[in-house]
Amino acid sequence: MINENLPKIWYGGDYNPEQWEDPAVWEDDVRMFKLAGIDIATLNVFSWALNQPNENTYNFEWLDETINRLYENGIYTCLATSTAAHPAWMAKKYPDVLRVDFYGRKRKFGARHNSCPNSPTYRKYSERMAHKLAERYKDHPAVLIWHVSNEYGGYCYCEQCEEAFREWLRNRYGTLEAVNKAWNTRFWGHTFYDWSEIVAPNDLSEERPGDVSFFQGISLDYRRFMSDSLLDCYQLEYDAIRKHDSETAITTNLMGTFLDLDYFKWAKQLDVVSWDNYPRIDTPISRTAMNHDLMRGLKSGQPFMLMEQTPSQQNWQAYNSLKRPGVMRLWSYQAVARGADTVMFFQLRRSVGATEKYHGAVIEHVGHEHTRVFQETAKVGKELQQLADQLVDARVEAKVGIVFDWENRWAINLSSGPSVALDYVAEVHKYYDAFYQQNIQVDMIGVDGDLSKYDIVVAPVLYMVKEGYANRLEEFVANGGTFVTTFFSGLVNENDLVTLGGYPGELRSLLGIWAEEIDALHPDKKNKIVTNDSTGSLSGEYTCNLLFDLIHSEGAEVIAEYGEDFYQGMPVVTKNQYGSGQAWYLASSPDQAFLNDFVTTICEEKGIRSLLKAGPGVEVSERVKNGKSYLFVMNHNDHDSTFDLGEERKENLFSGDVISGKVTIEAKDVVILRNEHLGDL
Amino acid sequence: MINENLPKIWYGGDYNPEQWEDPAVWEDDVRMFKLAGIDIATLNVFSWALNQPNENTYNFEWLDETINRLYENGIYTCLATSTAAHPAWMAKKYPDVLRVDFYGRKRKFGARHNSCPNSPTYRKYSERMAHKLAERYKDHPAVLIWHVSNEYGGYCYCEQCEEAFREWLRNRYGTLEAVNKAWNTRFWGHTFYDWSEIVAPNDLSEERPGDVSFFQGISLDYRRFMSDSLLDCYQLEYDAIRKHDSETAITTNLMGTFLDLDYFKWAKQLDVVSWDNYPRIDTPISRTAMNHDLMRGLKSGQPFMLMEQTPSQQNWQAYNSLKRPGVMRLWSYQAVARGADTVMFFQLRRSVGATEKYHGAVIEHVGHEHTRVFQETAKVGKELQQLADQLVDARVEAKVGIVFDWENRWAINLSSGPSVALDYVAEVHKYYDAFYQQNIQVDMIGVDGDLSKYDIVVAPVLYMVKEGYANRLEEFVANGGTFVTTFFSGLVNENDLVTLGGYPGELRSLLGIWAEEIDALHPDKKNKIVTNDSTGSLSGEYTCNLLFDLIHSEGAEVIAEYGEDFYQGMPVVTKNQYGSGQAWYLASSPDQAFLNDFVTTICEEKGIRSLLKAGPGVEVSERVKNGKSYLFVMNHNDHDSTFDLGEERKENLFSGDVISGKVTIEAKDVVILRNEHLGDL
Amino acid sequence: MINENLPKIWYGGDYNPEQWEDPAVWEDDVRMFKLAGIDIATLNVFSWALNQPNENTYNFEWLDETINRLYENGIYTCLATSTAAHPAWMAKKYPDVLRVDFYGRKRKFGARHNSCPNSPTYRKYSERMAHKLAERYKDHPAVLIWHVSNEYGGYCYCEQCEEAFREWLRNRYGTLEAVNKAWNTRFWGHTFYDWSEIVAPNDLSEERPGDVSFFQGISLDYRRFMSDSLLDCYQLEYDAIRKHDSETAITTNLMGTFLDLDYFKWAKQLDVVSWDNYPRIDTPISRTAMNHDLMRGLKSGQPFMLMEQTPSQQNWQAYNSLKRPGVMRLWSYQAVARGADTVMFFQLRRSVGATEKYHGAVIEHVGHEHTRVFQETAKVGKELQQLADQLVDARVEAKVGIVFDWENRWAINLSSGPSVALDYVAEVHKYYDAFYQQNIQVDMIGVDGDLSKYDIVVAPVLYMVKEGYANRLEEFVANGGTFVTTFFSGLVNENDLVTLGGYPGELRSLLGIWAEEIDALHPDKKNKIVTNDSTGSLSGEYTCNLLFDLIHSEGAEVIAEYGEDFYQGMPVVTKNQYGSGQAWYLASSPDQAFLNDFVTTICEEKGIRSLLKAGPGVEVSERVKNGKSYLFVMNHNDHDSTFDLGEERKENLFSGDVISGKVTIEAKDVVILRNEHLGDL
Repeated sequence: MINENLPKIWYGGDYNPEQWEDPAVWEDDVRMFKLAGIDIATLNVFSWALNQPNENTYNFEWLDETINRLYENGIYTCLATSTAAHPAWMAKKYPDVLRVDFYGRKRKFGARHNSCPNSPTYRKYSERMAHKLAERYKDHPAVLIWHVSNEYGGYCYCEQCEEAFREWLRNRYGTLEAVNKAWNTRFWGHTFYDWSEIVAPNDLSEERPGDVSFFQGISLDYRRFMSDSLLDCYQLEYDAIRKHDSETAITTNLMGTFLDLDYFKWAKQLDVVSWDNYPRIDTPISRTAMNHDLMRGLKSGQPFMLMEQTPSQQNWQAYNSLKRPGVMRLWSYQAVARGADTVMFFQLRRSVGATEKYHGAVIEHVGHEHTRVFQETAKVGKELQQLADQLVDARVEAKVGIVFDWENRWAINLSSGPSVALDYVAEVHKYYDAFYQQNIQVDMIGVDGDLSKYDIVVAPVLYMVKEGYANRLEEFVANGGTFVTTFFSGLVNENDLVTLGGYPGELRSLLGIWAEEIDALHPDKKNKIVTNDSTGSLSGEYTCNLLFDLIHSEGAEVIAEYGEDFYQGMPVVTKNQYGSGQAWYLASSPDQAFLNDFVTTICEEKGIRSLLKAGPGVEVSERVKNGKSYLFVMNHNDHDSTFDLGEERKENLFSGDVISGKVTIEAKDVVILRNEHLGDL
Repeated sequence: MINENLPKIWYGGDYNPEQWEDPAVWEDDVRMFKLAGIDIATLNVFSWALNQPNENTYNFEWLDETINRLYENGIYTCLATSTAAHPAWMAKKYPDVLRVDFYGRKRKFGARHNSCPNSPTYRKYSERMAHKLAERYKDHPAVLIWHVSNEYGGYCYCEQCEEAFREWLRNRYGTLEAVNKAWNTRFWGHTFYDWSEIVAPNDLSEERPGDVSFFQGISLDYRRFMSDSLLDCYQLEYDAIRKHDSETAITTNLMGTFLDLDYFKWAKQLDVVSWDNYPRIDTPISRTAMNHDLMRGLKSGQPFMLMEQTPSQQNWQAYNSLKRPGVMRLWSYQAVARGADTVMFFQLRRSVGATEKYHGAVIEHVGHEHTRVFQETAKVGKELQQLADQLVDARVEAKVGIVFDWENRWAINLSSGPSVALDYVAEVHKYYDAFYQQNIQVDMIGVDGDLSKYDIVVAPVLYMVKEGYANRLEEFVANGGTFVTTFFSGLVNENDLVTLGGYPGELRSLLGIWAEEIDALHPDKKNKIVTNDSTGSLSGEYTCNLLFDLIHSEGAEVIAEYGEDFYQGMPVVTKNQYGSGQAWYLASSPDQAFLNDFVTTICEEKGIRSLLKAGPGVEVSERVKNGKSYLFVMNHNDHDSTFDLGEERKENLFSGDVISGKVTIEAKDVVILRNEHLGDL
Repeated sequence: MINENLPKIWYGGDYNPEQWEDPAVWEDDVRMFKLAGIDIATLNVFSWALNQPNENTYNFEWLDETINRLYENGIYTCLATSTAAHPAWMAKKYPDVLRVDFYGRKRKFGARHNSCPNSPTYRKYSERMAHKLAERYKDHPAVLIWHVSNEYGGYCYCEQCEEAFREWLRNRYGTLEAVNKAWNTRFWGHTFYDWSEIVAPNDLSEERPGDVSFFQGISLDYRRFMSDSLLDCYQLEYDAIRKHDSETAITTNLMGTFLDLDYFKWAKQLDVVSWDNYPRIDTPISRTAMNHDLMRGLKSGQPFMLMEQTPSQQNWQAYNSLKRPGVMRLWSYQAVARGADTVMFFQLRRSVGATEKYHGAVIEHVGHEHTRVFQETAKVGKELQQLADQLVDARVEAKVGIVFDWENRWAINLSSGPSVALDYVAEVHKYYDAFYQQNIQVDMIGVDGDLSKYDIVVAPVLYMVKEGYANRLEEFVANGGTFVTTFFSGLVNENDLVTLGGYPGELRSLLGIWAEEIDALHPDKKNKIVTNDSTGSLSGEYTCNLLFDLIHSEGAEVIAEYGEDFYQGMPVVTKNQYGSGQAWYLASSPDQAFLNDFVTTICEEKGIRSLLKAGPGVEVSERVKNGKSYLFVMNHNDHDSTFDLGEERKENLFSGDVISGKVTIEAKDVVILRNEHLGDL
């Protein structure tokens, strides 16, 4: 449990009373928060300039008053540290806080998330701010969690970062010779003879926009370094808080599959993962589900916080559609169903001016509660109060793990060839979606995640195989596991150096194949997947595209062959018996029809079943606690849908009814069904 | 009348004899000008480097000779001040004249319209140039008008501009506290504690290309400031001229709906508006008409100058098509029909080299008069001579005003949300076009324009409502006027701060509605407009798209409802009785079919009729002078068209015939029909 | 012959053993090279940092060993000078080697082809490197040719380049007055009064990305200057080598129709032309053929080197498809058929890391010879050994010359108007392709090429007519030649100044026409070509698009007229009798159907016949040596094709069979047929 002082699904969000001068507004806020069942407010996210109007003055009275006023009204605080945007005076006085951008330009004051992570000034004053806040509020009963900075991201390429990068390299590699070797600098005569010759890889040196690099090794390491540099900034604040407050959880809000940061590494330093969920109207529902599962996976299944979502509308999308009636509630429960222990909004009251004034809020510009958005918000608030603590800290169980690795993703993006259309996250999502469509629970896992608890592990496009990982996969399969990987896997080590001797490198014996060549064609150009399984679960007509490995079986069973082109008849899907388990290889990117049948095939083999057979567009997820199962059934359709519980009797948590047999769920509705859990948790 | 020394529609254009060394060319120019009926030449537009070869030397002999040579041949001068491109020596010696661009880069010498408007050097030498020219030519009988600089535009972001911006802010707001409040800088912690902390908003700070801003307040003010800075440059030259020449009109050439400058503010400082008209082959004819009406509206109906158009071909369009036979003449009269008192070209003779050598000219590279272009030019020249002074200073009368406001446009562009597809000018043009298709005369008016002379005022997307404007609109409607506005109106004040308490803010009581939410969808996604008026003028099947206000009537009559989506049945068109008049609200962007019927409806209510019922593609406009009406009928079609004058007898100014009844007009032809005017002018 | 020590078609490619530490790899390389029939290795292309680890140390032991090891195994060396990428230490110590890019940014160390060509440091050390290498290897029997730097290209805009540009201008024009006149700087007041006022034309001054210029004269001269500056760098190395080695051929590898450099000027300084051929899977085969012919044309028919091609796959294309089975062999012989005396690859062994690790190689990452790619490579190697010296130095004969001129191309690209869709290379290729489809041999010639040996000369879009060239064309036609040119020809001189008095300027009397106007429409908008030749070879239904000259015959016969638009009935194709020959003008860009018939027409008139009538997709080219003809028949189709040799008996060089009559060639196969040559060589 994040904090026992509020033993329920927290409900609230970002709140910026400092933007309002009239105390009557603050009073009205509190009145409406109560109407809406709000019990947590995130404060102080962007108040640095207010808190510290100059180098030596600090001013927290407004914050004292706000925290107290809310607390007196039963509303707790998620306390941010205000360091996500430095004050203008700091940029003026200490330009080292300003970043140099990808294009090599020293930036000026503006926007947010704008500080150089290796700026001495930024590090000094952000740490000091965390220290001052922790010292002041460490014992305040309202403060349930610390929220360091906000949505970390963005890289800097200034000289102080370059110097820090050299130091980071020294720590990682020890010698310059080792760096030269790791980056293969004899290529194009890039050998470095002195540390000072290494410069940051950006548009002035080794890179071009869109993850184009002329030297993958340095570009890959710079991403690691930048992720670490920003993590250092977080850690400085974390440690400063911990000096004063040894217990309260500390987090920072992440952003799903955000590119810049290695969240699996970050998550180790977070007491609880929190994240901001902003799907578009046309975002596939399963993509959001995957993001939730990924956020849950960052800390191996520990419940997370939904730190931000919009009550209705975004402002920075191209077409900021309203969330249709019921959708905010539906998506809130989707988060909870997949592991969230909070439902929080950006924002509680809309700003009157500046960039986010057209971002939705619980309290809109009209300023009263008689709006559709407010009413829907209040309904959820009441329901969460009704649910009390029964879902808090409940876990999600899965027998399928899907591997996701940021370093692998960076390396794939940076690769020059074979295809610009290769999108790692899209490939991962294709596999995720195939399980999702059948309501089979999945964990998203990193490459240091425990494999032994899964029956099936899927690692799409496992291009980079880190030290020891091939052995762990072999052990997993040898012990009976089913492993699935794809084209463009096993090619390189952690330094993006090719594992010589034949693709897929370290995975070759596990998979029982050799990939001789990799064809790349325009994604519109498809090949056929021809299976021999004319009556089984893989008997359909399928296509594939994108990349086409030309593989030879070295012991693997050929499940399907290419149906066209000069490699017609070569294997496209293979299955290798390895110890007690099986290792599958998909040599091209199959269509969804194949993946659905494929998932059916491997799940049937392992006896993994759907949580509930429901129609298309009906999502099912389960949380488990104290021997009880909480089954979330969510109808994303615009029409009613019916599912069949069979003879099992479950309690509808909202209505209190005990039901069984055929159940109809309305469009956009969600039900939570509780029964005795029969699993092994 | 611009200048009584040439009491006719002026005919001529830009002329650059200084690009030619051979006097024989100059003689040939004059010979051909006479053949073409040309009586005005714009001189000295880009001759700064020639006039002032170094800091202390001035050389105007060539200009003396040119003006005199032309004058002796009956050709007057529109005298430019040559300050639209600084000399290379100046850029070398005084780099402060060079701009810093949007990307933060100090520019080098090149192109044109390239001077920093706050450069001390530029201001000093441009003012001095105006002074020297005025001193020299103030009494020259050839000079009919002054033409300051050329096509002002483009912004600068250098340090001297930043400093000037701070001063501009001090003048506008008085205190830094007021600035912080106007920009709502507590958002994202942007509070400024010292003026020096404010930097120019560009790609290094608060903006991104395409009018994307992270802080609307500063971006909006920077546009005002830049428009003012360039206007200051104009004003410096204006004042320098006025010191010597108290009478001759002074102008600078504008560019229609050009984004950068607030032309309504500029027009106050121009004695006569002039502008450059460069439609593409596929530019809607009504868009050009709107531009002319807008230019006429800048000075409340005062006739304007068509300063530039091409005789045939452009050079900087993607595909520089020829003007088809007759089109140059047709478009010239379109300008006159809508208020132009001059027809002028860029250019009289084509350059032999550099960027515009493929821009059309009266005298082409072939160098003689035996070209289609020259012959068409000469035909118009003769006609304008024939028309003599009868059209000069004639006015256009309209009972419909359409509001156009640059600051509103900037604010809409800068808004983060709700839709990137919202295009203010396109929305205004949709309404304009609906009147245009019915040949109903319209005035384009600014937000400080007099409303009392109109029966109908349409203000599409009146997002920003400036101080006092809502009251003026209420007064207009209370006194019987019909007011029309749309979705995304009434939201903010002049500082882009939201008017709280419910959209459309200050317009809410006038319109009798409350807009609770604003949905934004991809423009391809359409809703239906369902009216109850099954037999009336609004009985069609209509659609709408783009934005969809979810409105509630607070007294307004619901004229039409949405036909789809979750807001099916909510009002989409309302009409509110307010005093003696009516205020309409269109909650989404309707299709053209609806707008046509809508215009018919409101014009019928006010008894406003078409100037002439003519077929599609036949444009009609009227000018009025001394109790006479001059009706321009222009056939933009590629085929003949027939219209019916009824029993009224009119004189065809070109043929001299007096006609009535059915009249056939040839493809691309124009007729001007004179009769006694029955109006109230 | 390039070098008599290896009297056969050389076979090999780029080889980088310095990237491998294990001598066992080197031994294996040699073993496999022998298996593949490889006899030449290009060494030392990117080894500068290895050769010169600091300012005063040079280290060539590795190179000695490599050359010797290869030579002992029968493999010769193409010795590169390693100067295509400066070492990191040099960039750090002497930043003058770093370029300033088009956007005005001083670059940092990174990528390759990255040195400022006017950098004193670069020039000093690159010359010194060439000197040291030549001194060391001048007598080494393994070295067959010198390979200076690599793929020269890219421009710099730094201050030292600006200064050198001024000097270059002084040399070209003598006086600043002459520069002002050549650039027509009175336009937009750009007159220069001091050399120092001239700055480099880039995105900070006169240009925008995509060859957009605001001042064509300076932009055109800067391209000439940059081409010359890079050529100076080449020449410095050339001369340094020549000081030590007076005999061995020297080259640098070119890149087909690469934009940056005037290859006709460069070729004069190359002893033998070499080039790198990297078509995509969808590159028209005839485009590659044209490139080969162009490379052959650079030195007036002298055989060239195919310096680089990939054995199978690229890495930097969007979709790096494999070369289908047989295609590498087919394309290798296409090069030989069109004049190549070498078949060489990038690369012999794939890198283990960095940018090109997914670029194909003879030895793939798997490291052994049991791959499709290796086997196909070895097959070609054996064949080339079998062919021995019989094709070496054989020539290609053509009676048709197609003009290609880089300066003309630059001027067209830079032109503001009339159409952004005008693509010089695409227009040239359209004409080339029409001959190619009929297997009519063509020479690609520069504007100083000898015309007298051709029956037909085609100069598509000959926009720029250099001094004396019109006279030479007139002489060619007067003597009986057929000349063909098109719209947008004859407009300007070498300074991009318009030739006044009527288009097509200096070509007007030769062509017997006057082009009064040039219409430009969106390329989708087509006109019709209507011929009077209802029964002849030009009797089809044809269209044209892009640009439409409105021409008047001044003596030329009108062969076809426009069928639409207001210029319907005006000439679109004319033929002018001039002396004993004929000059054709195509006033618009015709479709391929027209061009095919047109080529048939003019070739029939001149008695020029197809080398061999073969079906679509079957390319035929001929080389001639010592009175023997070598006819290459290449089937690019995916299916068999049959052609008819008639009664002529020819020897199939691969099979040794003597054949005649109908012959079937397999998909992707090539045959070389030898017989007695009856021509005049």
